[in-house]
Amino acid sequence: MKANGVYTRSIWRCAASPSEASEAASRAVAIIDQTLLPHGWRTLTLKTLEDAAQAIRTMQVRGAPLIGATAAYGVALALQESDGGDAVLLEALAVLNATRPTAVNLAWALARMRTALLPLPASARVEAAWREADAIADEDVAQNRAIGEHGLELLRGLIAARSSTLRLMTHCNAGWLATVDRGTALAPVYAAFDAGIDVHVLVSETRPRNQGLLTAWELAQQGIPHELIADNAAGFLLARGEVDAVIVGADRIAANGDVANKIGTFMKALAAKAAGIPFYVAAPRSTFDFSCPGGAAIPIEERAGDELRLIAGTSENPENPIAQLRLCPPQTPARNPAFDITPADCVTALICERGVAPASHAGIARLYPEFAHAFPPSSRANPR
Amino acid sequence: MKANGVYTRSIWRCAASPSEASEAASRAVAIIDQTLLPHGWRTLTLKTLEDAAQAIRTMQVRGAPLIGATAAYGVALALQESDGGDAVLLEALAVLNATRPTAVNLAWALARMRTALLPLPASARVEAAWREADAIADEDVAQNRAIGEHGLELLRGLIAARSSTLRLMTHCNAGWLATVDRGTALAPVYAAFDAGIDVHVLVSETRPRNQGLLTAWELAQQGIPHELIADNAAGFLLARGEVDAVIVGADRIAANGDVANKIGTFMKALAAKAAGIPFYVAAPRSTFDFSCPGGAAIPIEERAGDELRLIAGTSENPENPIAQLRLCPPQTPARNPAFDITPADCVTALICERGVAPASHAGIARLYPEFAHAFPPSSRANPR
Repeated sequence: MKANGVYTRSIWRCAASPSEASEAASRAVAIIDQTLLPHGWRTLTLKTLEDAAQAIRTMQVRGAPLIGATAAYGVALALQESDGGDAVLLEALAVLNATRPTAVNLAWALARMRTALLPLPASARVEAAWREADAIADEDVAQNRAIGEHGLELLRGLIAARSSTLRLMTHCNAGWLATVDRGTALAPVYAAFDAGIDVHVLVSETRPRNQGLLTAWELAQQGIPHELIADNAAGFLLARGEVDAVIVGADRIAANGDVANKIGTFMKALAAKAAGIPFYVAAPRSTFDFSCPGGAAIPIEERAGDELRLIAGTSENPENPIAQLRLCPPQTPARNPAFDITPADCVTALICERGVAPASHAGIARLYPEFAHAFPPSSRANPR
Repeated sequence: MKANGVYTRSIWRCAASPSEASEAASRAVAIIDQTLLPHGWRTLTLKTLEDAAQAIRTMQVRGAPLIGATAAYGVALALQESDGGDAVLLEALAVLNATRPTAVNLAWALARMRTALLPLPASARVEAAWREADAIADEDVAQNRAIGEHGLELLRGLIAARSSTLRLMTHCNAGWLATVDRGTALAPVYAAFDAGIDVHVLVSETRPRNQGLLTAWELAQQGIPHELIADNAAGFLLARGEVDAVIVGADRIAANGDVANKIGTFMKALAAKAAGIPFYVAAPRSTFDFSCPGGAAIPIEERAGDELRLIAGTSENPENPIAQLRLCPPQTPARNPAFDITPADCVTALICERGVAPASHAGIARLYPEFAHAFPPSSRANPR
C-alpha cells in the first residue's frame, strides 16, 4: 500500500549497506519502525538474527503475519552470518520462537523454514532460506488479496441490505502494516474502496499501545474515510446502530474457532453480538493453530506495566519532536495482558484466503481439510 | 478522604481572598483542579457564577454528585454577586444547567435550589442559597456513607463465598473526587477497607480522559491495593475469573433501571454478564431521573475530538513539569461520545443510600416510593 504517496511493503529485501549493493553475501531486509508511527517515519535495516529478534520483541514490527515473515528472514540472516550448520539453524529457530508467545504465525513460519532447510546440506541453506522467506512474504500478500476478495463479497451483501455507506469498525491494526501488504481485516476494506464502494471505518485507539493510530494513519495514506474512537466508545456506537459490521484480524485461531487477538477484541465481539451486528475475523492459514483445542490453551502475553504508565507522541519542541510523557507514577501497579480470547460463538464468520466459514471445527475443517486429522477431538464441542 | 495525608473534601467553603476572611458577603468555594490530577495538585477558588460554570464545563470538577454540589454553590455565588432578584436566579439556573447534559444530578441540584429560593424575598436568598448548597454537600457525604454500608453488606456475601481477597473492578472515577466525599462506587471499597477486609481494585484507565488515573491516585492516597489496567483488558480479566464484582457509579438512572455512565461502562457490564460476575451500580437519589422512561431518552454528551488527539502527563522538563503531546494529526477525524447506556438487564443491583434493589421500575419504586407516581408507564416494561 502507499506510504507518503509511494507504494511500499512493510518488509522488503535490501542491501546491508549501499556500498555492498552487489555483494550477494550481504543481503538484508528493511522494515518500517512501527514504534515511531504515526509520529515519525523511519526505516531500519535488519542485518543479523539479533536485529530481527529485537525488532519483533520491541514491536518495531508487529502484527501476526508480519511477525511470521520477519522471523523467516531472521533465519536467513542467521544462516548468512554463519556456517549454516544445524546448530546455527536450530539456535536461530529457538531464539526467534521465544520473541513473542501469542501469534502462532511466528511458530508457523519457523516450522516452515525448518522443514525447508534442515534436510539441505549447510552450503545450500543460505540461498534456500532467502528463497523460502521471500515465498512466505509473497504468499502473505497473495493470501491477503484473496481475503480481501472473499470479504468484499460478504460486505456487498451488507451494502445491498442497507444501500448506504458501508460503516465498518475495526480494532488494533490488522492492516497493511500488520502484514507484508494489503492487511487481513483491512484487506476487504481496501478491496471495497478499490471497487468504488463508499466505505467508512471506525478505528478504535487500541490502548495501551495505540495501534489504532497506525490504522488511522494507514487509512489516511490511502485516502479512506475513517474516524478515531476511544476503545470505550465501541459498545455505544454498536448499540446505536452506527456500524454495519466489525472486522478484526487474529493472532491465533484454535481448531474450535476461538480467536486470540489484541486485548479489547472480546468486548467488541460481545457488543456486536448484543447489537445483532456481524463480527468477522480475517486471517490467513498461518494464523490457524490446528492442534490447539480452544482459546483456554492459547498463551496470553503479559507485557510491561510501563506501556500503561508512559505514552509517546509529538511535541512542539523542534529539537525533540517525538517525546514521552508519564501518565501516572512509576509505583502505580499495573496489569497488562496484550491479547484476549473471543469465543467462537461470538464470531459470525472467519474470512480466509480460501473463503468464508463458520468459526467452528466443522467450518475450519471445510476450509483446510488437509489439516483436519490434526484437530484435537475436544475442538469438536462447538457444533456449528 | 485523604489527599497528601490531610483529610479533604472535593469542594469546601472558603473566603474569596485571605484579607476578606471575616467578610460575610465574600464567601466562596474551593475545589481541587481535577484536570491536573494525578500529575499536579492545585486548588482553585470559585468566586462567581462564571467560575462555577467554567469549572463544570472544563471538568475541573467532574463526577455527577460533585457537579450537582458545585452547581448549587454556583447559584449562591450568582446571588451574592447581584441583587438576588428573580432574573438573576433564573439566569444562573439556566447557565449552570447548560454546562453539561448527561449527569442528572446537575438538574436535580438546580431544581432543589430553585424550589428553596424562588419563594423567598430577594434579600433572603443569598443566605438561604449558601445554606441549601451546604445541605446538598453534607447530604451527599451522608448518602455516600450509607451507600458504603449497604455495599459492604453485599461484598461481605462475596467474601464469605470465596474466602480470599475481595477482587473488585471499577471504571472511571466514582470515588471521593467524583462526589463531595467517600464516593459512590468506591464508598463500599472504603467501607470494606475500614472494616479490615483485604480488598484489591482493578482500575480501568477510562480513555479518553483517563479518570481511572484519578481513581488510582485516590486509592493510593488511602493506601488501598489496586492495579491499573487498559480499558481493553477488562473483558479478559473478567472472563479469566480474576474479579469478584464490578462496581461503577452513574450519571443518570432511568425509571426502568437503565444506567448512563462514563463511556465504556456498557462493555464492562456485558463482559461481567458473560462471565457470571455481579455488576453493581452505586448512586444516590440525585442520580435518578424518575421521569425518564429508559436509556434511549438520556442525552449523551459528545465531546471534542482533541480529547483523543492530545494527552497530558508529566515530563522530565523541570520548567514545564506538566506537558501535552499530540497522539495523531489534528486532521484525524474523531468521534467522542462521553457516556453510554447500560441496559437494566446487565445490572445485577443498584446500591443506593436507602439500600440495594434490582435495576427495574419495581426495584426503584420500592426504594423511592414517594416518586413512583412520576414514573412513565413505559418504564414498567422491565419486569424485575
